[in-house]
Amino acid sequence: MPPPATFSSFSALMRRPPPPTRRLLLVAAARPHSTNEASRARPRFHSPSLPSSKGEVVRIQGDEFWHMTRVLRLGINDRIELFDGAGGLVEGSIQKVDKNGSDVELLENARLIAPQGIQWHVFAAFGTLKGGRADWLIEKCTELGASSVTPLLTERCHTIAENRVDRLQRLVLAAVKQCQRVHDMSLKPPIQINDLPLVVAQSKLAFLASAEAPPVLSVLPKSTDEESGLLIVGPEGDFTEEEVNILKAAGAVPVGLGPCRLRVETATISLLSALMLWSDASRQETQRSR
Amino acid sequence: MPPPATFSSFSALMRRPPPPTRRLLLVAAARPHSTNEASRARPRFHSPSLPSSKGEVVRIQGDEFWHMTRVLRLGINDRIELFDGAGGLVEGSIQKVDKNGSDVELLENARLIAPQGIQWHVFAAFGTLKGGRADWLIEKCTELGASSVTPLLTERCHTIAENRVDRLQRLVLAAVKQCQRVHDMSLKPPIQINDLPLVVAQSKLAFLASAEAPPVLSVLPKSTDEESGLLIVGPEGDFTEEEVNILKAAGAVPVGLGPCRLRVETATISLLSALMLWSDASRQETQRSR
Repeated sequence: MPPPATFSSFSALMRRPPPPTRRLLLVAAARPHSTNEASRARPRFHSPSLPSSKGEVVRIQGDEFWHMTRVLRLGINDRIELFDGAGGLVEGSIQKVDKNGSDVELLENARLIAPQGIQWHVFAAFGTLKGGRADWLIEKCTELGASSVTPLLTERCHTIAENRVDRLQRLVLAAVKQCQRVHDMSLKPPIQINDLPLVVAQSKLAFLASAEAPPVLSVLPKSTDEESGLLIVGPEGDFTEEEVNILKAAGAVPVGLGPCRLRVETATISLLSALMLWSDASRQETQRSR
Repeated sequence: MPPPATFSSFSALMRRPPPPTRRLLLVAAARPHSTNEASRARPRFHSPSLPSSKGEVVRIQGDEFWHMTRVLRLGINDRIELFDGAGGLVEGSIQKVDKNGSDVELLENARLIAPQGIQWHVFAAFGTLKGGRADWLIEKCTELGASSVTPLLTERCHTIAENRVDRLQRLVLAAVKQCQRVHDMSLKPPIQINDLPLVVAQSKLAFLASAEAPPVLSVLPKSTDEESGLLIVGPEGDFTEEEVNILKAAGAVPVGLGPCRLRVETATISLLSALMLWSDASRQETQRSR
């Protein structure tokens, strides 16, 4: 199992990415829910490193190369998009294809797309979930735009298999490409519940899925200037009372998710949806009022 | 494939169940998200017919009998709960177990639990979804408390396999039991998009997941007296422009689901979560103000 992350990595986690050094364009971070839209977009591939200037060439290898040439059967002069997962996005044209990879020439200077709205960080105790439930928790958190997901280790969910984490990493990239995010969803190393209060204390927006709590939408403020927030969901069997108390003491706000008993993954997706849609609404509200 | 439902069945669909003839208790329709709570609940089994009075005996057979005696290994004098999926709930005790079934004696008069809050009816074009995505759309709609789900047949999603519908029916019951609903989630026969405007026109709350529309949470009214509403999600490839226009003309309100491009099943769950949490919040608001 990966070593538990250190406190310093949490503060990093709660910060926005460093200010861009390249030309900054504010562009919608992803395509909306419409494949009409998507069909107008070029096929998009991930390249960990991205040159910044028109005319430069980048080499695509491995899975992305396979997807480009074998699955989509793209070849010389086909136009594609490249993204680096850190907001960098650029249009390119395939110049050369050989046995091991393809060379793509940039047709424009790379754009750097700033993250939009509140960055939500998910802490969920999903280590014990079976039947692909952890897979889709991760896939849906990625699709819905979560900034990071951290497996939470609690008294009733004290471990998560390392091979599962590796597998989830691959799911994340697939989902990032599918929903056309230009910023990766960061799957963090597992942390112990005892380390979580330190993270909660750093965040002005910290919500805890809880049984008898008031409905989440009646708890949320009308608007906010916060740039990030976090949501916390307990394991199968829920948090112990003591765990709930230390999270509340650290400032986590308990929120209810309706009358039904939800599975861990459903509670996570439901709460994330509500918070994403809330911050989306308040962001557009703020933009209008400017 | 089942014949498309007739218009009359839609008006039925939009109405609440008939007023109970039995003694009515208002009880939370399901356990909240807490297995601490759930662990205090007795194992619950589905019985299509439920006697109403203490002392009466009902016979449990088939899958439920198997689950009761083989999976949970319950026997004589063990206490259980029985529900009929129409709001009927009662505590009973196992009196007799034989090869084919068990007799359960009611330990109290059956309670009839009224549906809570707005009844949400989902219309989603999920016939083309692969990889178990339709399965979990149905499972999550059930968990989140949807009143019904109707497969929508559109130009870009013109069919759904009948064996899939059968399979989904079994998933619904499993999810109903898991999340401790006392009201079944009704999986309706598929309907053609051309029949949907008639349903939309009957509902004061009809929301259509749409790309460039304003965020759903900025569109929802502060509160409502409506008893039911519906949400509409298009297929992979989205509705055609003409389909969107006839739905809008019928009164469906387009709502946005944030900046990300969502899969059909994710858009459905996200919109349903938002609407359930909104009606939950406004219901509790109304109760407080009384």
